Amino acid sequence: MVPHLITALTGPINELENRILESMPAIERWFRLEWMEHTPPFYCSVDIRNAGFKLAPVDTNLFPGGFNNLTPEMLPLAVQAAMAAIEKICPEAKNLLLIPENHTRNTFYLTNVQTLMRIFNQAGLNVRLGSLDDSVKAPLKLPLPDGTELTIEPLARTRGRLGLKDFDPCTILLNNDLSAGIPKALENLHEQYLLPPLHAGWAVRRKTNHFERYEEVAKKFAKLLGMDPWLINPMFAQCGQVNWQDASGLDCVRANADALLTKIRRKYKEYGINEKPFVVVKADNGTYGMGIMTVRDAKELDEVSRRTKNKMGTVKDGQQVTEVIIQEGVPTYERINAAVAEPVVYMIDRYVVGGFYRVHAERGIDENLNAPGASFVPLAFSASHHLPKPGEKPGVSAPNRFYMYGVIGRLAMLAASYELESTDPDAEIYE
Amino acid sequence: MVPHLITALTGPINELENRILESMPAIERWFRLEWMEHTPPFYCSVDIRNAGFKLAPVDTNLFPGGFNNLTPEMLPLAVQAAMAAIEKICPEAKNLLLIPENHTRNTFYLTNVQTLMRIFNQAGLNVRLGSLDDSVKAPLKLPLPDGTELTIEPLARTRGRLGLKDFDPCTILLNNDLSAGIPKALENLHEQYLLPPLHAGWAVRRKTNHFERYEEVAKKFAKLLGMDPWLINPMFAQCGQVNWQDASGLDCVRANADALLTKIRRKYKEYGINEKPFVVVKADNGTYGMGIMTVRDAKELDEVSRRTKNKMGTVKDGQQVTEVIIQEGVPTYERINAAVAEPVVYMIDRYVVGGFYRVHAERGIDENLNAPGASFVPLAFSASHHLPKPGEKPGVSAPNRFYMYGVIGRLAMLAASYELESTDPDAEIYE
Repeated sequence: MVPHLITALTGPINELENRILESMPAIERWFRLEWMEHTPPFYCSVDIRNAGFKLAPVDTNLFPGGFNNLTPEMLPLAVQAAMAAIEKICPEAKNLLLIPENHTRNTFYLTNVQTLMRIFNQAGLNVRLGSLDDSVKAPLKLPLPDGTELTIEPLARTRGRLGLKDFDPCTILLNNDLSAGIPKALENLHEQYLLPPLHAGWAVRRKTNHFERYEEVAKKFAKLLGMDPWLINPMFAQCGQVNWQDASGLDCVRANADALLTKIRRKYKEYGINEKPFVVVKADNGTYGMGIMTVRDAKELDEVSRRTKNKMGTVKDGQQVTEVIIQEGVPTYERINAAVAEPVVYMIDRYVVGGFYRVHAERGIDENLNAPGASFVPLAFSASHHLPKPGEKPGVSAPNRFYMYGVIGRLAMLAASYELESTDPDAEIYE
Repeated sequence: MVPHLITALTGPINELENRILESMPAIERWFRLEWMEHTPPFYCSVDIRNAGFKLAPVDTNLFPGGFNNLTPEMLPLAVQAAMAAIEKICPEAKNLLLIPENHTRNTFYLTNVQTLMRIFNQAGLNVRLGSLDDSVKAPLKLPLPDGTELTIEPLARTRGRLGLKDFDPCTILLNNDLSAGIPKALENLHEQYLLPPLHAGWAVRRKTNHFERYEEVAKKFAKLLGMDPWLINPMFAQCGQVNWQDASGLDCVRANADALLTKIRRKYKEYGINEKPFVVVKADNGTYGMGIMTVRDAKELDEVSRRTKNKMGTVKDGQQVTEVIIQEGVPTYERINAAVAEPVVYMIDRYVVGGFYRVHAERGIDENLNAPGASFVPLAFSASHHLPKPGEKPGVSAPNRFYMYGVIGRLAMLAASYELESTDPDAEIYE
């Protein structure tokens, strides 16, 4: 189930959207059956692009950092979902240790941490913050915009357990994507629940792995609805050894971009779509919108500037980019006050708990919006017609366009679940 | 977790309320552990009285009929809770058969049925309506205020299963309290889930049984918070053989009312409460606010008028009242536009999904409000501060008074769970 939030796009519901809306009970049942076989990631946010002819996820974040962008009305949904998640994992739990990103005084991010603490507190847990930063030797107070403050404490590691001074948690929740690698303090915690697991961090995770699983999910789902999976699936290719500085390995990127552009052109022709195809080249293990470029013609890769090379070659925490994903670009037709916008769907456990728009006034519909200058617009609950009513005459109820986004978000979450199963180093292998 | 709804009562948070607010994480954990041992009823509504010095449930309905009184903003919470409930019971389910009350064209009730259908439809089920009324021989259309209509169909019973023509449900959800007795069509359905179970209907259920279990729950909870259970528990007594027409058995009611009034007077003295005690005499198996009288002095029972005798002697569907509960009266200090009001809390599975006020302009604070002339005021979500923030200075966040109501509502729901376990005719007995 997906709350009815007001989307900026208000045009008529197109064929693809209509098919999803009409199939709601079948879709919900399908998800129910999938979640019987697969464990959802603890939480998850998905960036979505709605091109009208195509609706697809472009990024799936397993350490969502924008809970502050949800409206207060959505928080009860988040708490209810958090309760469901905790009941499954550690029902006796009293304490939750939350580990946020290091070195940040970004008040937006800190408000995200504050919101997460409130959600889990309401769900019935004592929540405290621990820092992976070795320089934090004593409790550190970080001021918040509302006049209160967060206290982040040094971690206390014993042989089998991780906690804080006088605080022994049942579950450790990471809100740190481990871009800098897996810290020693988190290794071999066999007595506690560490969520998401270490292999969900960017030190291990690869986007190509995720989108390979997403393709599998999209095919299953498209079969259920009797449609072409391409309508919800962004095609992609990968290159393993790219050195942006000496341009070695760029041949692979160029060839793959060219092949992908040809494939997109063919699809556009098949569907009579009058758009200029583009691909997006991204770090396979990157995050925070660093190391991303839009390519409309493979030749553009011959003339990459020094600045772009530097930008492409490094992501968060100074990690070097050598592995690259080349992804089909999906234009976004959502706009807020004329600025290009893309919806972001937030989920906890198997539930959609809210969403917001990422908006960037200086970017085009074929560009990455997760960049400096972006702002966030919370999606409000629809004031009048909160639940879509299938089978009703148009005009009787406003269609819930956000329902579609919630479906695509959950497909990406399901793909993340497949992905984490396949990359789990402790998984038992049945031959 | 409980959504933050705006209560009419805005006075300062008193000692009892403060204790509940401060203990939130411990309370939520306590409920989590209780729900590991006990299955919540599928859905439930609880009438609550807030006297300031005391906060208690006065009635627990296992066939709630006021989903139409929830604001649209609450429906996503209801859908999320319904999904959680279905996942546990029948995850593969495609179809749900909903059985509403018979013979009703009351549009408020029909809108309740429509809302329930929407909730379960959104949760991923095909929902159709079946009638227990034998006179329904063909699909019957019932018009709704929004211009749409409901279709209610005759039941189709086979040896092991109940359904409709071309409709075989996994789960049958009763929204009919079975006051008229257990219909043959519902007996021996061992292949399907019938929820709530037959022994939750008023043909079997007794209020005294419920409040006996509630006392047990209240004692456990009061121990957790280190307080007197009386502060949340309405005392009661029962009489088994009362004939209102020839006044036989009224001696028992009189003696019990007198003894209970004395007990309440003693408690009021202990706490320095300056109120006139009263008790409420109700049918032990009644519903719909029929057969209820307020007694301030046991002598009042000597002068019961013919009209009152008739009223007391019969409840819904002409059922005769011989068993009676004498319950401690709890005044309600909630008012809406000067009219006396009592909060009603709605729950699905273990979750509070919303609430509303029952308001009656012509009744006193010590009278039953569930009577002709009552109206319903949906509780809105609090606009600014949605989650209570324990430990914060007053004024920083508005306290969530509805949280308390959600706690008391869930205590009553837990008591209903204990009650249904103890009255289950199919329960296995371990000696």
